[in-house]
Parts: sequence; C-alpha cells; structure tokens
Amino acid sequence: MKLIVVKVPVKLVSWDDIVTWASTLANKIIESKWIPDVVVAIARGGYVPARLLCDNLGISDLVSLQVVHWPSSAQVSEKAYIKYPVAQIDLNGKRVLIVDDIVDTGDSVVIAKDHVLSRWPKADVRTGALQWISTVAKFKPDYYAYEVKEWVWFMYPWNLVEDLSNFIRRIMNDEYKANSKVNWSLMELTDKLSEWYGEEILKVPLSYLSRAIASLEKEGFISRLRGNDFEIIRLVKY
Amino acid sequence: MKLIVVKVPVKLVSWDDIVTWASTLANKIIESKWIPDVVVAIARGGYVPARLLCDNLGISDLVSLQVVHWPSSAQVSEKAYIKYPVAQIDLNGKRVLIVDDIVDTGDSVVIAKDHVLSRWPKADVRTGALQWISTVAKFKPDYYAYEVKEWVWFMYPWNLVEDLSNFIRRIMNDEYKANSKVNWSLMELTDKLSEWYGEEILKVPLSYLSRAIASLEKEGFISRLRGNDFEIIRLVKY
Repeated sequence: MKLIVVKVPVKLVSWDDIVTWASTLANKIIESKWIPDVVVAIARGGYVPARLLCDNLGISDLVSLQVVHWPSSAQVSEKAYIKYPVAQIDLNGKRVLIVDDIVDTGDSVVIAKDHVLSRWPKADVRTGALQWISTVAKFKPDYYAYEVKEWVWFMYPWNLVEDLSNFIRRIMNDEYKANSKVNWSLMELTDKLSEWYGEEILKVPLSYLSRAIASLEKEGFISRLRGNDFEIIRLVKY
Repeated sequence: MKLIVVKVPVKLVSWDDIVTWASTLANKIIESKWIPDVVVAIARGGYVPARLLCDNLGISDLVSLQVVHWPSSAQVSEKAYIKYPVAQIDLNGKRVLIVDDIVDTGDSVVIAKDHVLSRWPKADVRTGALQWISTVAKFKPDYYAYEVKEWVWFMYPWNLVEDLSNFIRRIMNDEYKANSKVNWSLMELTDKLSEWYGEEILKVPLSYLSRAIASLEKEGFISRLRGNDFEIIRLVKY
C-alpha cells in the first residue's frame, strides 16, 4: 500500500457556502449596530462578497481598490501593495467597510486599511471577510463569518481557473525537476492533481480544467499535441 | 375563476445560470481574439460578472466605477450619471472591457463607456454583459451571453433583498392608494407578491423576505406589531 500524503489540502467552496457566509457576515455587522456608509471591495477576491453584503445591508455605495502581491517566485518575501487606489470619493466622516474573501496572512486587508486611513484620516474604517484563518493571520478582521483553524486552500467559485492553472504549473514544474518529465496525458495530470491537492479537487467541473489548460497553452507554458485518439500535454517553459 | 394577470413577470436567476453565462461570455470574447487588459466593473451589478470574467479570461486588472440612476420617483425621466469614477490608472492604449450584469435601457453602459473614453481617448473600449434585452435597449453591447427578447425582471442572486424590498414597497403603496390598506399579514403580502410578480417569486428563500422586511422597517417605511401568535406589518410612510 502506498501512503499518499496530500501536499496542499484543498476545499471547494460552493455558491451556497458563499451566500450563507455573506449572510452570516451581514448579521454580525447588523448586530454590532455599525452599518457602513460605503463598502470598499478589495480586488479581486472581495468583489463577490462585497456585492452580496451591499444587498444584505442595503448599501448602495460600492467602490474598490486593488491590492496585488509581488510574485513569490521572485524569491523575496512576498509583499503586497496597492495597485489601484480607491476612486475620487471623500471617505472622511464615513463608516467604511473594507471587504475581502479570506484573511489568510492578512497583508491585503492591512494594506488596504492603511491606504484608506492615510488618505482619509477621519474615516471610520472596519474590515470584514467571509473567512479568517486565525492560526496564520497576523490580523483579525473586525467581522468574519467563518473562523478557519487549520490551514486549507479554499477554492472560491470565482477563482477556479486561476487555482487550477497554478496547481498544474506547480505539479509540472516539480515533476520536471524530479524526473525530467515533460509529456503528460490528461489522466496522469488528473491523478497528480488529486494526489497533491486531495480528492476534493476532482469535484471541480471539467470545463474549468479545459479552460486552465487552454490558458497555460496561451501563455506558452505548455503545448498540446493532438492525434486522433490521444492528446499529450507537453511542458514547454521550464 | 379569477383571472390573474402578473404585472411584472419575474425570473429568478440561479448561480448556475450566472456561471454558465459568464463562461459563454468569456467564450465569445476569446473567439473574437480581443482579450482585454483591464476589466471595468459597473457597480454594483457588474461586480460578480466582472470577477468571473477575470477568472475565465485570466485577467488580473480589475477596477470599477459606479453609475447611479436618479430616483424615478422624482417624476423626471430617469437619468444615469457617474457617481464614482474609475481610480487612477492610465487606460490609454489598453483594451478595456466594461462589464455589467444586464443591458436593459443601456444607459449605464453608455455612460460608463463615454466616461472612460472622455478620460482616456486612446483606450480601446468594448462592453460586455451577461444579458442584453434586445427589444428595449438603445445600445447593443459588444459581447453578451444571452439575448432576452421579452422583457422580464431578472432577479439576480446578489440583488434579492433589494428587489424584494422594492416589490413590497410598490405593492403596499399601490394598495394604500387603491383601498387605504395599511395593515398586512405576512400571508397577504406573500399572496400579493405572487399575484404581481408571478409564482416564480415564491422560490426566493424565506431568509431574503425576512431581511427585506427588516430593512423596510429600518428605513421607517413599515413597522411591525408582534403578538404571541400574530404579526402585523403596518405601512407607516405613505
């Protein structure tokens, strides 16, 4: 018997989960009697939760800012920065809720909050997220729906193509380093995906896998060789 | 037999519909070989479609602007305007996709496009929406997933509380004008909802109705009288 240890445990988040968490988050905000005037979504992860919160809380003012992370491949410690700031709007004196999907390291939310407070020192800023990984995050959001105690990679329904692309990229790079493997069948890839990320990954609809493979092909990471009854996915960029 | 004519036909949109339409929209964009550099979401309706498109198309740059409509109750012709413009970002020379959920009159998308082009005349701007009501819209988006030929009010899953609140407001105002009715049981309200908006409205989960009633109470439109075994919803603001 071969003992398989999943390298990165993955949990697939359903739309039902999202709706439930957004509603729970809204309830916590309502209970605190602090109803925001404006919601600031952190792009891109905060877009869906922010939109759902606006509906649940009856808020019409919705703006966004984008926080991006330096690529970790740069071998420097990953650092987040504001790529696109909030639009022209006076937030001084306003109750501002900054929203993200998950507070993992906490970097994005901290930077977003600092940014808003540095531009509008008189804003009353709080933060909210669907999920808070309490054992990892350096920062606790004012509101969260769900506390995660064991680190898991949550695959949100709005990030499936990107997650899958990243997973495939990691697997193919790793297997190239270990065994100089360049040619893959779709079945080998699927098997490795479940070996690395757990059976849960096999619940992702097939269409996302096609889209992820197409996007890796487009960026020149892989090429596809197709015959009548076979297809080989070949690692190109290594 | 009483003939009931639904006043506003309503269609409940599921998350599955949203995912399918976003994927169809992405396919059309891919087929056109015009892949955007930046997605501009129209707040608030465009937030979810924009986020899903970013995943499907592998786009990381996501910003937003907010278009609002003068309240129609002002008795002037409803007019849309930009409340929050796009953040500091140079869109000149960039392929910019403006995204909304539905193109109904077309006002929001037209105003958003004009705004982007007036600030960045060298932007290559196109527009996309999940749905296009071809028989009503004065404007046809460059990309859409689903052409609607008969006007229906689509209830998106991120706008259920707001839609229900508006529906209840209309019903109670109308019945007050017609019959001076101020007191409502929850059952009367539910019956009227299905009479006005069709059976489809009864598929909305009950939690949204609670939230809509709570929000109408909070804004002072109704008050709630609760006894041991009854509840009356009373119109207050008329």
